[in-house]
Amino acid sequence: MKYVTYEHNGRSRVGILDGEQVLDAGFDGDMVAFIEAGAPAGRTTAVDGARLLAPLRPRTLRDFLAFEGHLKNAYRNLGREIPAEWYEVPACYKGLPDTVIGPDTEIPWPSYSDQLDHELELAAVIGKSGRNISADNAAEHIFGYTIWNDMSARDTQRHELPVGMGPGKAKDWDGSNVLGPCIVTADELDVADVRLVVRVNGEVWGSDTTAHMHHTFADMIAYTSQDLTLRAGEVLGSGTAAGGSGLEMDRWLQPGDVIEMDAEGIGTLRNTVGRRP
Amino acid sequence: MKYVTYEHNGRSRVGILDGEQVLDAGFDGDMVAFIEAGAPAGRTTAVDGARLLAPLRPRTLRDFLAFEGHLKNAYRNLGREIPAEWYEVPACYKGLPDTVIGPDTEIPWPSYSDQLDHELELAAVIGKSGRNISADNAAEHIFGYTIWNDMSARDTQRHELPVGMGPGKAKDWDGSNVLGPCIVTADELDVADVRLVVRVNGEVWGSDTTAHMHHTFADMIAYTSQDLTLRAGEVLGSGTAAGGSGLEMDRWLQPGDVIEMDAEGIGTLRNTVGRRP
Repeated sequence: MKYVTYEHNGRSRVGILDGEQVLDAGFDGDMVAFIEAGAPAGRTTAVDGARLLAPLRPRTLRDFLAFEGHLKNAYRNLGREIPAEWYEVPACYKGLPDTVIGPDTEIPWPSYSDQLDHELELAAVIGKSGRNISADNAAEHIFGYTIWNDMSARDTQRHELPVGMGPGKAKDWDGSNVLGPCIVTADELDVADVRLVVRVNGEVWGSDTTAHMHHTFADMIAYTSQDLTLRAGEVLGSGTAAGGSGLEMDRWLQPGDVIEMDAEGIGTLRNTVGRRP
Repeated sequence: MKYVTYEHNGRSRVGILDGEQVLDAGFDGDMVAFIEAGAPAGRTTAVDGARLLAPLRPRTLRDFLAFEGHLKNAYRNLGREIPAEWYEVPACYKGLPDTVIGPDTEIPWPSYSDQLDHELELAAVIGKSGRNISADNAAEHIFGYTIWNDMSARDTQRHELPVGMGPGKAKDWDGSNVLGPCIVTADELDVADVRLVVRVNGEVWGSDTTAHMHHTFADMIAYTSQDLTLRAGEVLGSGTAAGGSGLEMDRWLQPGDVIEMDAEGIGTLRNTVGRRP
């Protein structure tokens, strides 16, 4: 099943994607409440002229660094080696739930940055709450998956990185995180091998597969849930796929660029880069 | 004014602290809703036998690194220099709102750590929403202040730090962040010079003053709010005061230890360290 959050006549509702058609899911409440309620089957109604929003406002937003290929490319440009700890620890930074926007919107260019970059990622959405979840049992806690374009101000990131607290303003501005276009339920996706592609103005800039993730979503959930309750609506990102950012090849976005991210089995997340203030 | 969240007969409510007496604030909603509503004066009622909870579930939880003295002590033990960027960038990591607990509770010892540590901090609570707030105008966006004991698993932190994404499990387990005992409104606190003290089992382990903050709360708000909306109920921590952690002097907490943190004008935040699992 593909679930969306859509807007129609000024109301935001949970919907089901049936091909191109949006069906109202017959649920009163937002996507996180819908997931918490166990995605109840309701009376569906076709909605014409629905506009897709971000599928959910995540309860929390964690972003891991699972792809070795991305790191190798990025660190080569920084003249650094991948730290040994990376291979052992599924580390993450945390984003801000209120920065999330949806498909087919303009991504605001932050006024303080000259170097804007996209990041092609797959994101898992927690369904069933749990604590001390083993990697073997992690799959049953994942409701589904969506695409995450984790926009990044690279010049800002270079200033923040040496302090050792992870990215701040490099990732945090209104509209800096794009999720969508839908959440595909876990039963419909073979997460061990999802093809990911990013195009800028129609040209392929990078592609990879989740088969190359060194840390799997199961690893992330096992690590993260140690002595900590994970809840419905929390979002865990894969980190950038190899070739999933411009940084890796020193190519940079310009205002008006159209970014398209495909994840096989989910769809395409398309956005335009806004004007520089 | 000193505001609290209290529990009485299984209900959680906003209260006012009048000396030792808790008065119900006459507001239906939680502390974040109360702050958003402009802290409306309601019909107050004395409540006997109220138990203080964390004053709020923060909308977000950011922790800065404002005290040079703490960094100097911590980095000396790590054999590292303070990076030049620290002096320019008020960098932070983000915590998890759902991990927050309140005063006079037991702090759970995370099963994966052998080296548990406290961190003595002052925290500002955002009141008035805003975006692109200048340092000069920042004060009007602060509702008030509370004490934050930011518990840390130091052995875990050493493994996570080299990956460069900031702390994860080093700071994230159920009950790892203590806030309280109350929020004192900004008009009643001279934030430029708040005396902070931490005692373990009655012995002073460290003390400092906010006069030593290299980055002020105004700096943090100005930096953070660039192109980003700050909202009522978001919490910004000062980072650890000098001497505010055991790490700085290689002294470590044991199960059963009583941690008390004083902030002049706010009160004392007291907790007991739980058993090792």
